[in-house]
Amino acid sequence: MDKYIYGVDVGGTFLKIGLFAVNNHQLLDSKAVETPQENHEISIFQEIIKTINIINIDHGIDMNDVLGIGLAIPCPTKNGYVSTCANLDFCHIDLVQSFKALLPNHIVVTVGNDATLAALGENNSLETPYENAVLITLGTGVGGGIILNSNIIEGKTGLGGEIGHIKVFDTDEVCGCGAHGCLEQVCGTKGILNNALEQKNKMGSVLKEGFTVKDVFDAAKQNDKAALNTVHRVAEYLAIATVNLAITIEPDVFIIGGGVSKAGDFLLDLIVHYFKKHARFNTGDIKFILAHTGNDAGMIGSYYHAYQHIK
Amino acid sequence: MDKYIYGVDVGGTFLKIGLFAVNNHQLLDSKAVETPQENHEISIFQEIIKTINIINIDHGIDMNDVLGIGLAIPCPTKNGYVSTCANLDFCHIDLVQSFKALLPNHIVVTVGNDATLAALGENNSLETPYENAVLITLGTGVGGGIILNSNIIEGKTGLGGEIGHIKVFDTDEVCGCGAHGCLEQVCGTKGILNNALEQKNKMGSVLKEGFTVKDVFDAAKQNDKAALNTVHRVAEYLAIATVNLAITIEPDVFIIGGGVSKAGDFLLDLIVHYFKKHARFNTGDIKFILAHTGNDAGMIGSYYHAYQHIK
Repeated sequence: MDKYIYGVDVGGTFLKIGLFAVNNHQLLDSKAVETPQENHEISIFQEIIKTINIINIDHGIDMNDVLGIGLAIPCPTKNGYVSTCANLDFCHIDLVQSFKALLPNHIVVTVGNDATLAALGENNSLETPYENAVLITLGTGVGGGIILNSNIIEGKTGLGGEIGHIKVFDTDEVCGCGAHGCLEQVCGTKGILNNALEQKNKMGSVLKEGFTVKDVFDAAKQNDKAALNTVHRVAEYLAIATVNLAITIEPDVFIIGGGVSKAGDFLLDLIVHYFKKHARFNTGDIKFILAHTGNDAGMIGSYYHAYQHIK
Repeated sequence: MDKYIYGVDVGGTFLKIGLFAVNNHQLLDSKAVETPQENHEISIFQEIIKTINIINIDHGIDMNDVLGIGLAIPCPTKNGYVSTCANLDFCHIDLVQSFKALLPNHIVVTVGNDATLAALGENNSLETPYENAVLITLGTGVGGGIILNSNIIEGKTGLGGEIGHIKVFDTDEVCGCGAHGCLEQVCGTKGILNNALEQKNKMGSVLKEGFTVKDVFDAAKQNDKAALNTVHRVAEYLAIATVNLAITIEPDVFIIGGGVSKAGDFLLDLIVHYFKKHARFNTGDIKFILAHTGNDAGMIGSYYHAYQHIK
């Protein structure tokens, strides 16, 4: 009899609910439904169950053949416990126990941070997953997740993998996190745009008022000096952060994702260039690849997280 | 029937061989013998077996009751495989298989890096071991080991935990590892002495020619300005390295060991001061403690490593 696991990416706007086949890890179906506005500590679970029931009926699946449900949530969590969540109304709650209370006894529930589970999703959906992998997502913020010995790293309270807040330089400017000199201040959208504007003001540029991060990378690809300076800065600081991860946890691979990573091999090659420049001992050979699962990474990762617990 | 495991710290000068009782993890006896000069790929194993036989006879132990032997070795190793070793004549060798070939079939052999296993030894010999712990050893070099989810972190090739080579500052001076700006360049013996001399030349100091690291800390405790500047620099850079570890792997505890840590709470309090200053999110509460097992850490850790495999 075929068995199934659901992977759910719980976002502030949408819940993305995916049905996976346990025998081959394939995503069979997925639905995105709006995240309820209120009472998150109950309403989100109810919405997920409702949607799962619909998908089950569509596919003729009996709930007895659903082995587990994995959740990816947008806040730090340790073994499913959340103390506070900036994006959802979760407060000092054990999400595993709360969700299990609404489900048949046989269903295993797992919960993890979305960026951490995205790392698991990206890695485990590679043809041959690595034992140790680090995902770095470059977007408005810089996030990430760490997989070591094939398991997610949550750390003491669930702050493991907050790669965007590695201190990489000295500055008086304050990061969104309240600290100074975070990687995100260089490699996040705001850092990129501010630095490109500064460079443009210094030396001129083809960049026009209201330019975007994509414009910066496009201009750099066309050898615009100001844009190139910014892109090199992004690549070098990101490389320094990864050099330090390489010498402490030595992953097999760094996976670069997020909107900014759409700059593709142009960015990846620069990061590798600076990584090799700064690398310690024999860590310079560590692979860098681009993320490939797009917005499904968290959903896929939450599936694999539940699968690991069941297996 | 009582069962036993041997933990062996394989050094360039001595082999420290400890007999441990499995039921209560107690060290029952230990012997230090000189490391053979030649043919390390066989002679070290022979010397260990010879010494174990002597200890067995002393304690009336039958080899059938020895469940395993753990080795801590002074070079990077992954699952017991060593590609090169600066201190011993090991070259492209699987130490687990090589050692097992000389032992009765029932004996489990484990091999790990000495600093990494020292982290395991320090942590597991605490009254209540932590799930996630980082050991940082401050001596001539700066080393360390990482324990996450109660397991050692070796990384891709065994370079996990090389904390001394985290890049923490920009400099043209080259570190012993060949790179620039390593933590070891600030917090290793040479970095401390050089900086103290520089400070002394700048502003005078009670430090006399030929001063030692202990002198620097003693002078700092007496409020010598030059020495204080150096000690604050050591504490702040070490804090920055730990802040970055806190936000990526979020250990429950940082354990500070090695000769320099003999400066005790004076140094520890300064590190914690700077750690809180630079800490991200809620990581400022992570504990810092001083190492307590001294030179036995590697031997104890190699015992626990073997124990974990057998259990």
